[in-house]
Amino acid sequence: MSCVADVPATRSAAGASAAQVFAEGSPRVIIAGATGFAGALAAHLLWRHPRFELVAVTGRSEVGRRLDDLYPRYRVPLQLSELELDSDGQLDAAVVAYPHAAAAPAVGELRDRGARVVDLSADFRLSSLQTYEQWYGKHPRPDLLADAVYGLTELHRDQIAGAGIVANPGCYPTASLLGLAPLARAGLIADVVIDAKQGISGAGRAFDETTHQSMAGETILPYKVAEHRHTPEIEEQLAPLRAQGGATDEVAVLFQAHLVPLDQGELADCYVTTTRRVDDAELAELFLAAYEHEPFVEVVGSPPGTREVQGTNFCRVFAKADPHSGKVVVLSAIDNLWKGTSSQAVQNLNVMFGLPETEGLT
Amino acid sequence: MSCVADVPATRSAAGASAAQVFAEGSPRVIIAGATGFAGALAAHLLWRHPRFELVAVTGRSEVGRRLDDLYPRYRVPLQLSELELDSDGQLDAAVVAYPHAAAAPAVGELRDRGARVVDLSADFRLSSLQTYEQWYGKHPRPDLLADAVYGLTELHRDQIAGAGIVANPGCYPTASLLGLAPLARAGLIADVVIDAKQGISGAGRAFDETTHQSMAGETILPYKVAEHRHTPEIEEQLAPLRAQGGATDEVAVLFQAHLVPLDQGELADCYVTTTRRVDDAELAELFLAAYEHEPFVEVVGSPPGTREVQGTNFCRVFAKADPHSGKVVVLSAIDNLWKGTSSQAVQNLNVMFGLPETEGLT
Amino acid sequence: MSCVADVPATRSAAGASAAQVFAEGSPRVIIAGATGFAGALAAHLLWRHPRFELVAVTGRSEVGRRLDDLYPRYRVPLQLSELELDSDGQLDAAVVAYPHAAAAPAVGELRDRGARVVDLSADFRLSSLQTYEQWYGKHPRPDLLADAVYGLTELHRDQIAGAGIVANPGCYPTASLLGLAPLARAGLIADVVIDAKQGISGAGRAFDETTHQSMAGETILPYKVAEHRHTPEIEEQLAPLRAQGGATDEVAVLFQAHLVPLDQGELADCYVTTTRRVDDAELAELFLAAYEHEPFVEVVGSPPGTREVQGTNFCRVFAKADPHSGKVVVLSAIDNLWKGTSSQAVQNLNVMFGLPETEGLT
Amino acid sequence: MSCVADVPATRSAAGASAAQVFAEGSPRVIIAGATGFAGALAAHLLWRHPRFELVAVTGRSEVGRRLDDLYPRYRVPLQLSELELDSDGQLDAAVVAYPHAAAAPAVGELRDRGARVVDLSADFRLSSLQTYEQWYGKHPRPDLLADAVYGLTELHRDQIAGAGIVANPGCYPTASLLGLAPLARAGLIADVVIDAKQGISGAGRAFDETTHQSMAGETILPYKVAEHRHTPEIEEQLAPLRAQGGATDEVAVLFQAHLVPLDQGELADCYVTTTRRVDDAELAELFLAAYEHEPFVEVVGSPPGTREVQGTNFCRVFAKADPHSGKVVVLSAIDNLWKGTSSQAVQNLNVMFGLPETEGLT
Repeated sequence: MSCVADVPATRSAAGASAAQVFAEGSPRVIIAGATGFAGALAAHLLWRHPRFELVAVTGRSEVGRRLDDLYPRYRVPLQLSELELDSDGQLDAAVVAYPHAAAAPAVGELRDRGARVVDLSADFRLSSLQTYEQWYGKHPRPDLLADAVYGLTELHRDQIAGAGIVANPGCYPTASLLGLAPLARAGLIADVVIDAKQGISGAGRAFDETTHQSMAGETILPYKVAEHRHTPEIEEQLAPLRAQGGATDEVAVLFQAHLVPLDQGELADCYVTTTRRVDDAELAELFLAAYEHEPFVEVVGSPPGTREVQGTNFCRVFAKADPHSGKVVVLSAIDNLWKGTSSQAVQNLNVMFGLPETEGLT
Repeated sequence: MSCVADVPATRSAAGASAAQVFAEGSPRVIIAGATGFAGALAAHLLWRHPRFELVAVTGRSEVGRRLDDLYPRYRVPLQLSELELDSDGQLDAAVVAYPHAAAAPAVGELRDRGARVVDLSADFRLSSLQTYEQWYGKHPRPDLLADAVYGLTELHRDQIAGAGIVANPGCYPTASLLGLAPLARAGLIADVVIDAKQGISGAGRAFDETTHQSMAGETILPYKVAEHRHTPEIEEQLAPLRAQGGATDEVAVLFQAHLVPLDQGELADCYVTTTRRVDDAELAELFLAAYEHEPFVEVVGSPPGTREVQGTNFCRVFAKADPHSGKVVVLSAIDNLWKGTSSQAVQNLNVMFGLPETEGLT
Repeated sequence: MSCVADVPATRSAAGASAAQVFAEGSPRVIIAGATGFAGALAAHLLWRHPRFELVAVTGRSEVGRRLDDLYPRYRVPLQLSELELDSDGQLDAAVVAYPHAAAAPAVGELRDRGARVVDLSADFRLSSLQTYEQWYGKHPRPDLLADAVYGLTELHRDQIAGAGIVANPGCYPTASLLGLAPLARAGLIADVVIDAKQGISGAGRAFDETTHQSMAGETILPYKVAEHRHTPEIEEQLAPLRAQGGATDEVAVLFQAHLVPLDQGELADCYVTTTRRVDDAELAELFLAAYEHEPFVEVVGSPPGTREVQGTNFCRVFAKADPHSGKVVVLSAIDNLWKGTSSQAVQNLNVMFGLPETEGLT
Repeated sequence: MSCVADVPATRSAAGASAAQVFAEGSPRVIIAGATGFAGALAAHLLWRHPRFELVAVTGRSEVGRRLDDLYPRYRVPLQLSELELDSDGQLDAAVVAYPHAAAAPAVGELRDRGARVVDLSADFRLSSLQTYEQWYGKHPRPDLLADAVYGLTELHRDQIAGAGIVANPGCYPTASLLGLAPLARAGLIADVVIDAKQGISGAGRAFDETTHQSMAGETILPYKVAEHRHTPEIEEQLAPLRAQGGATDEVAVLFQAHLVPLDQGELADCYVTTTRRVDDAELAELFLAAYEHEPFVEVVGSPPGTREVQGTNFCRVFAKADPHSGKVVVLSAIDNLWKGTSSQAVQNLNVMFGLPETEGLT
């Protein structure tokens, strides 16, 4: 980046205010890293979005190829380019879809260039640098951590509105936390086991034994037993919610992930040992109170199949008490690529730019 | 049954002894209820079995149709007939694949006729009549309960050898109990949550919304939350194993089932709160000690995908301690139609007739 | 229908003119038969359509159930009702999704009630009564045949605009005819074999051996060999196109259908023996000339996978000469439920009501 | 190969006679190239074969890894090694599963070493060097072509029995030729179009966009339009069969391939323009006469789904006249990895070593 002086001095920490931006026309957005599943879907959603202007899609491996050639179904007629940040054009926002460690430096450059960023990687999800480095290795830009807000829209809407960097959550934490938040806030979680399953798209555009149809088909594949990186992310988010509920202790989450042979869909089964007995009536009340005004969270009365939310930004949550074991079961279903990743990024962009949260998503 | 006098008086309670039977040639077996997935696969396995003679396949709904027309891939060239028990021919064994409540009367008649029976229904799985009637309704033949042995071969091999009625376990209890038995016997289970997933064949030959490819495909479907009938079956079997390990209390199992879009395959994830801390070394020792001589249980060193055991009688078990939460995760993978149902029935028949346990199964 | 006098006398044969209708607000539409896949998707598309008002969804088997309970992913919050045509409310249009023979009487009643109808059944697809009765049996309302227009939008747009009854094409004829029309009009088709494949949704909401995931999965299933009812439909439409190209003979089409294990998608491979040698350059020119202004037909430069058009109203066509055999191969890919059925119905409604053809479809 | 003098002088051109070999124990076989799907399945079949001894499996990319680690379901407990041909041990046969051009040199070395070889590549399928080089490029060992026999067992059984090199057919030619042979021999084929579909395993262990579950799932993918290399293979085999039927002309086959989302299964639809009208009775007679004594070809009375033959060496053939178009449709279903590749290799080995043809295959 040759020219950070280009960034107008009047911009706030978060970049231009939304009012300023719209006075100048639609906010201009780029996708950095549009060759993977997450970036490509974000491009699709922003291309058809009525209020954002998608001005560029970048990708290191397929430069020059059109995105609608790489992903015909997404119909985005833009050519993949390299990330060039010293152009003269205005840049209001960016979605960064790089692997962790590669993302943070790009986020930094985009911030310098004045863009507000939704980062899909893990680089800014954990507020504790120590926890990050324990699970992911050295952090390339720890100086930026303080500017980042965790982007689970339903939990942090207010901070997201003014944030310069929004750390889009992992798909598993999204489903898990939406399922657990009402219980946590009510001080009901004494212990929790999460068993999550998702479709093969969750493995991304990796070409290997976990994604080959003759290997990934006709199987149920557990992975990363007792060592999944989403564990600390869930715990770090759960802690303040539990504290709101009066908890003074910590809960060590046991999280287990699986791949199952479908494309898009994710279910998190949360098995909660409660601090006291609860029944279905109390659960219904708690969950409805938490979500009745949420546009994208639906409390349902029967166990949700992931197909019900495929290709949408919805999360369907079902909670039930098991009088036999005394535990509570919460089932939370999302589309791992949509609410779990790319459509939640757009939901966050809507919030960041003062648009209706559902714009371009229904 | 007009003619129980046909049954030779010299037969033991379990029917003819194996030695007697083989002296007269291969044991003659029928499948009662061969139109469903379980009965059809049992027919396939017994038709190609080197030591049994499959003499009839019955089915109420498709009488007159050949089984290899209904199930081309199983290649059993027998015509489906009605169950006729007063024929003069010798009948040494039967596999009954009827729904619960319909099975018990048929089992009774077959016993009267001198056959040793493997029953695939739930009718004889629970030794407690009270528990049965709480979950399944009135039992049609409680008088026969005392003659039945629970047919999880690895746990009850000795009793199965002499049994007149073997109650073939449910597929979920098969996977779960093989995963939990070593921990139970070591007195290590303080609490357990089981999250199980299986392919669509687990729903049987039912034609409805849970099996239609356009509804069952591309989804993960949780069902029977906090009310699955396999819960008491697992608990009843777990109790004596835990008692062996010195436990004096009871454990209330939380069991949750799911359908995922594949044909055959089942994984049970068992999340165990242990009575004391254990590490991977101790787990390895425990599981190897339990299964090193078992022909069909494999203790593996990485998380097993169900594809590894598809179309086989094998169960693959993987156990890992999670130092973070203090719990133990046991993953147990089977083919729900094979080890979970029909090939375990054949394994039991082998044991009942004094054959090598692996005969016809490898 | 007690009360045909309700129908305003001033309405044209096709019912109210579009201008009239919009003066009174959005056209009011019902779906008759919304429990099946086709009707449900039509309901979804019309519910979210910016210019039509979906006022009722009917279904004989699920009356009282909400459509978003039956099809959660379609999110149409209407309750299924019985078809009641003597209500006082205005009714401008209807989509009828009944089986053949059941559809025609309902279409007649809806016409009497003043509605313009898109019929998804075969009842009005064949203009020859004789051909209809040879393939489908007695026609319940032959008197209405003269009012019906064949609803392949790209071929009959002008007549559709003023039609009272639009016979929505079969999915196979849609793909096949869009692939063959340019060749037919150029007088190039001497003979044609069509090999078509589609996903399981093509079998509809039938619960049987062709749709059960454990039977329909992992197979390729040919059906109706040399006897598919779409054959005469394709031939009847092909004849005038060939006549435009100067053909004076008839072509007997050989059409073969298959089910393959996916949900939505259809490919028609058309193998054309040409009346003279053609090369790729001439094919490119022909197909581009035919479709360059069509909003929903895309001539592509590489063989199209059906995934490229899944969930859209697009048809992708690819044509290639085979110098070795002298034949021409045309591949035509659609989503069988969208362009093959329900979105084409909406495309037709757009044309019938003078709306932009793409309204509500992109 | 340092040491061709090791090869016993007394061996015939085809290597040791079968009688000689069995006098010395089971024939010793290796698989060269067992990391791919074809080689791995051949290893599985030969490992469990009662009459062959599988002594080594080789693979350039996974040396040292156990085959049952790479392919758990095949349960072959051998370690992958490099191909070492100068060992002292006896080597009676080899299956070579290398890509074309890489295969021929290995086949040559194995022949020098005294082994009889089944080659799964295309290197010896075409007897015409000119045709080979037109489609595949330069042939590395044209000197060996004269020793090779085309290994479609049902057509060339006698020559296979004495052959040194058996060129295992492509999977598409296997299905197509078994479907067409009876018509060809009867002089009935004037013209033919073949539309073939197979599961993703047909793409092999390639990790790319054609095999990734999120791309290969939910699609029907045509490929290699008017340029598939199996075209000349089918034509070269069809020519002598047609000549037997009196044909003096040549037929240019139009062959089209597709990938559909299943694992193993293949269907070839053959659309035959006949030299004269034939009806179903004549077809039935022709096909039964051709195949009634064949152990692995089944003439069936209804359209075969590929699931019926999955995991078997069977081919199911169905023929039907279409009086409307005057053509004949032949449907031929196989498992592309079994009869289409690896189990046919074993069938050929059985023939080569004088064993019952079905040995180890049922």
